[in-house]
Amino acid sequence: MATVTDTPIRIGVMGCAVIARTVSRAIDLAPNATIAAVASRSLEKAKTFATANGYQQSVKIHGSYESILEDPDVDALYIPLPTSLHVEWAIRAAQSGKHILLEKPVAMNVSEFDKIVAACEKNGVQIMDGTMWAHHPRTAKLKEFLFDSDRFGQLKNINSCFSLAVDEDFLKNNIRVKPNLDGLGALGDLGWYAIRAALFANNFELPKIVAASPGTVLNESGVILSCGASLSWEDGRTASIYCSFLANVGMEITAVGTNGTLCVQDFVIPFEETQATFTTCLKSGFNDPWVSRPTEHSVKTEIPQEACMVREFARLVGEIKNKGAKADGFWPNISRKTQLVVDAIKESVDKNCQQISLSGR
Amino acid sequence: MATVTDTPIRIGVMGCAVIARTVSRAIDLAPNATIAAVASRSLEKAKTFATANGYQQSVKIHGSYESILEDPDVDALYIPLPTSLHVEWAIRAAQSGKHILLEKPVAMNVSEFDKIVAACEKNGVQIMDGTMWAHHPRTAKLKEFLFDSDRFGQLKNINSCFSLAVDEDFLKNNIRVKPNLDGLGALGDLGWYAIRAALFANNFELPKIVAASPGTVLNESGVILSCGASLSWEDGRTASIYCSFLANVGMEITAVGTNGTLCVQDFVIPFEETQATFTTCLKSGFNDPWVSRPTEHSVKTEIPQEACMVREFARLVGEIKNKGAKADGFWPNISRKTQLVVDAIKESVDKNCQQISLSGR
Repeated sequence: MATVTDTPIRIGVMGCAVIARTVSRAIDLAPNATIAAVASRSLEKAKTFATANGYQQSVKIHGSYESILEDPDVDALYIPLPTSLHVEWAIRAAQSGKHILLEKPVAMNVSEFDKIVAACEKNGVQIMDGTMWAHHPRTAKLKEFLFDSDRFGQLKNINSCFSLAVDEDFLKNNIRVKPNLDGLGALGDLGWYAIRAALFANNFELPKIVAASPGTVLNESGVILSCGASLSWEDGRTASIYCSFLANVGMEITAVGTNGTLCVQDFVIPFEETQATFTTCLKSGFNDPWVSRPTEHSVKTEIPQEACMVREFARLVGEIKNKGAKADGFWPNISRKTQLVVDAIKESVDKNCQQISLSGR
Repeated sequence: MATVTDTPIRIGVMGCAVIARTVSRAIDLAPNATIAAVASRSLEKAKTFATANGYQQSVKIHGSYESILEDPDVDALYIPLPTSLHVEWAIRAAQSGKHILLEKPVAMNVSEFDKIVAACEKNGVQIMDGTMWAHHPRTAKLKEFLFDSDRFGQLKNINSCFSLAVDEDFLKNNIRVKPNLDGLGALGDLGWYAIRAALFANNFELPKIVAASPGTVLNESGVILSCGASLSWEDGRTASIYCSFLANVGMEITAVGTNGTLCVQDFVIPFEETQATFTTCLKSGFNDPWVSRPTEHSVKTEIPQEACMVREFARLVGEIKNKGAKADGFWPNISRKTQLVVDAIKESVDKNCQQISLSGR
């Protein structure tokens, strides 16, 4: 952990997306990070964003992305740019020696992400994606239960979904439905989380086979608005995921193991900021399934999950900056695996739900 | 409803399966039905069952299935025999003028069930399958919500699962894993309910396409122990189902519509006998998904859901017996549709997850 004498990691916000508001607040709340700068394609836009988000006077305002890359008072960049711009700007950030907190999906495809990671490795910078729920203390508790061979046993199936109904304006104008901006649509924006949950429950082992489910909905540009998929692993482990911009909120995980069951109703964004719950159910009987009733567990968090994310990112950056540590490999590794599954589902969607083998990827 | 002056419908229990205990109690609890007889392949077994279940002295004990068919004091039969025996004994029951409450899955395939239904029609007897949850007053409330165009809007996706972990002895010896007895395995025994839920939420419209998910687990005789499937309808409606004998209890429905979300944690067998709950969540915002929090609803029931089922069955039989009504077509129609989807998933499993079109079936 960062000690109190360490200087907070100075983070620059590169792009003024809506999500950047949440992360700006998170940077403020994280004890080991501070907002140092903000950049937009126009100085005006960056200024407006800084004011709207109550940035301190000391925060530098940049009128171009190039300019923030050259700012010597910035250690790391938070990059919430449209996905299609990630490969260019994340690589340039790495080349400028900036550590990177990159919004998800991390790239348009895994080969782009591999280029980003190569640039980060070459320049000794940390990269982590913006999957907030991974950093909530609840997630550590979920992991504890899922990998408890007594209480949960071996995983058999996990179902995870993330849907949010958007409005007409979003469906026409939002970058998330534009093929040249966030061309992975709902799969990249929402499915990312559901896939991550499936991988998380499988200890980040890649599935053997991925198949899109029939019934994908595309917009007129071919961008996914809604889709589902099935994943399968060795030993009969399976997962199904669902994501949609067209359906009301759903953000569930249901995982069944040989001995236990886990349910989470709000895994992506908890109902409350200061605590989050999950339900477990222990060994049932065939003729009396509720011999053991579901139990609700509650996990408190000092700071919101997005601030936990920033704290972890800044901690890793601090290790490199202050102690000469090597960049951590866990986070980019799971980003890559998530992207691989996104890519495979997209490929299956494009091939009429054909089964895609992930062997060797 | 049966009036108090109507004689209760006299039901014979044909086969002493474990589930027959539950239904015996249900017949007792239903105000318009009474247990009149019980049959097993041996008089001894039937006697033991009658005693173990506290049957009154007046209940006739039959040492063969043929014998109960000829009993003039039996109006209707509850048939919990292994699925492979349904086609023979349900047809013989119909030919003997007995109304039929038939355990699910109703047959090994839809063509067998069509023969059963034809025999029932020819003989003017009622048939209904043993899907208990359909009769819980909660189910009527779920329907109200799902078909409320304001609160729920149009269905987009439903996920339903039913898993129960069985023991080693079950996996070796239970009829549910024997190809010549309940050859549909977990798909017929548990998947039946999940499929029914998907059809229920789609107002019993058949899906266009059904595809098994990769990762089906079969036993050494080729009987399904665990599988999943995806279903898709016109207008981008989709469903995913999961069933397993190998995973701990799960019996969830999550349905997302354009405006609302429905969650049920215990749809097959409620946690409690006298009431059951479900959760709804109304219109969410993209940037504030929990602008409206989930609300829990509770629905009381005077008698357990299985007794509600018997009551509804006896009511329909009473209409025929006492008022000369025609047999009701709703229940066999939805049994048939459920069986059709069971068959299609089985076919897809056998064809390496190929998409099966239900057009024209």
